Amino acid sequence: MQTAAPAETDTLRAAEHRSRELEERIAAEPGSFRILTGDRPTGPLHIGHYFGTLANRARLQRAGVELFVLVADYQVLTDRDVADHLGEHVEGLVADYLAAGIDPSTATVFRHSAVPALNQLMLPFLSLVSIAELRRNPTVKDEIAASRQAAVSGLMFTYPVHQAADILFCKANLVPVGKDQLPHQEITRTVARRFNERYGPVFPVPDALLSAAPSLLGTDGQKMSKSRGNAIALSATPDETARLIKRARTDDDRRIAYAPETRPEVSNLVLLAALCQSRDPHAVAAEIGDGGAAGLKRVVTESVNEFLRPIRARRADLAADRTHLRAVLAEGNARANAVAEATLAEVRTAMAT
Amino acid sequence: MQTAAPAETDTLRAAEHRSRELEERIAAEPGSFRILTGDRPTGPLHIGHYFGTLANRARLQRAGVELFVLVADYQVLTDRDVADHLGEHVEGLVADYLAAGIDPSTATVFRHSAVPALNQLMLPFLSLVSIAELRRNPTVKDEIAASRQAAVSGLMFTYPVHQAADILFCKANLVPVGKDQLPHQEITRTVARRFNERYGPVFPVPDALLSAAPSLLGTDGQKMSKSRGNAIALSATPDETARLIKRARTDDDRRIAYAPETRPEVSNLVLLAALCQSRDPHAVAAEIGDGGAAGLKRVVTESVNEFLRPIRARRADLAADRTHLRAVLAEGNARANAVAEATLAEVRTAMAT
Repeated sequence: MQTAAPAETDTLRAAEHRSRELEERIAAEPGSFRILTGDRPTGPLHIGHYFGTLANRARLQRAGVELFVLVADYQVLTDRDVADHLGEHVEGLVADYLAAGIDPSTATVFRHSAVPALNQLMLPFLSLVSIAELRRNPTVKDEIAASRQAAVSGLMFTYPVHQAADILFCKANLVPVGKDQLPHQEITRTVARRFNERYGPVFPVPDALLSAAPSLLGTDGQKMSKSRGNAIALSATPDETARLIKRARTDDDRRIAYAPETRPEVSNLVLLAALCQSRDPHAVAAEIGDGGAAGLKRVVTESVNEFLRPIRARRADLAADRTHLRAVLAEGNARANAVAEATLAEVRTAMAT
Repeated sequence: MQTAAPAETDTLRAAEHRSRELEERIAAEPGSFRILTGDRPTGPLHIGHYFGTLANRARLQRAGVELFVLVADYQVLTDRDVADHLGEHVEGLVADYLAAGIDPSTATVFRHSAVPALNQLMLPFLSLVSIAELRRNPTVKDEIAASRQAAVSGLMFTYPVHQAADILFCKANLVPVGKDQLPHQEITRTVARRFNERYGPVFPVPDALLSAAPSLLGTDGQKMSKSRGNAIALSATPDETARLIKRARTDDDRRIAYAPETRPEVSNLVLLAALCQSRDPHAVAAEIGDGGAAGLKRVVTESVNEFLRPIRARRADLAADRTHLRAVLAEGNARANAVAEATLAEVRTAMAT
């Protein structure tokens, strides 16, 4: 669709501009922001998650922004393999969060299934959107276009409304997103606006905070994902990490350079090392020079293992103390419930139900 | 669709047969049945509701069946006029129930919006049905066929799943329905069956109990409905009742007979009088004989007012004591919450969420 491209670019540019403004306001008044973020408990978080979103969450929390972190357990129900190990995945996720620097003394880490008042918000919110709007969700659109309506569950179809409940139950006014998540975010803003217009001002209309992080590919040059076996888990051992990087795809040019367009696999490895060293990728590439794939992989392996060392140490301690992980989650669930019940009471008063 | 008719007749016949068997089992072991029934709080209940469903509920309760009665306040959110008077409508509905003989000492009368754990069940249940299945809802189908997807809200689309949560949260094994509600009921059975297959036996697969009651038309010969002004409300005064029946549509044949096929309006009035007198409509018609429309209307007015007199007296007492109505609802809400939380705990254990 040639006509769509400029519009999409405009939207993206506007979102980038807005995000820069937001970062300035966060720096000035961090206490006036509340973030909702979270993950589906499908398995261990990896280094792509770390640089893509975890580091940013920890940074914002350190700056003084209040964090709500959701373990979206209800959104994995349709994946049988995942659902079978849900308890394990949930605790692992909490360990990953804490190891990555999220501080549970001020962050609320909670799970979907433990907060009925949050889930109840779906009902009034579902009344505010049409199925025509829900069909615009890209995943749903693709499945319907392929005439696989039986493959779209009611849960998948209503997911953007559930997400609106996640964000609005705690009146988050900021949602960190990647570029591809901007359209999802729109339904939440629509729900908040329509609710306020119809029943009176209850919800903030949350802003999307675009992450500035460059996105990392997996070791095979494809999207990084646990299920593809191309992702370095935060919890992997240094040996597992070395083996994974050893198998990474590169090219035949011995001269290492950072040129994402022409040499994506090599550049992705350079970027990974650079992120771990907090350096510019061009400088990292220049230092490796003519070292070839072997030289590059040695540097990447060392950088990643060095960078992850303290995170892994913290994670090992955390994983050894499941009682503590459960207590963190129990406390987060209790806090989330109190917040959700207060919001639901406001919603009931506004709607006179 | 000529081919559909025999299949529909078969389904109906099977449901009728099953309902007769169920009535025998209810008579033998009433304590093993729990019913979920309810209404949208859109305004006062009328005499069509009374003979169509209220009398049946009260009869089953007297026989020893446990009753859960739902005030479906979340299902009227999209109707602005109704939503504006929701509190009033809800209390009026409770007064109608109690006046019609539902005994709140053993029935649980509650409202949707007060039971978060019930509403949360929608999430796992939504994962068990596809949008192809949800599109089969007749209302949704009609709106989509008319290309009015913007007219179908997410709430309307997911209504059958919400209904499954209503019925299954309290493990009701019996749902009284009219013929036209049989398809809705099927989604609840599907959800119960799929949940049990996937996560272990938690829910009964509820049976539809077809009402034997003949359906009454409004005084204009159309479907009886508050909004058409053709319905005799339980709470109407004798004078209002007389005026409404005076305006009722009849025909020019002075000889009154019970012949629903050929003389629907006159027969409907005869049926109304017969139901109020607990007599056969043919006998009632014979008694009026050549009395014509005026004679018929006199008999109908007297029968209805006489029949409703004790119900209206009880209702007036109830309506005068709003504190009592609120207490009945508060107690029902508390009971429903306890039941919903126990079921949700079982669901969580079964799903390991």
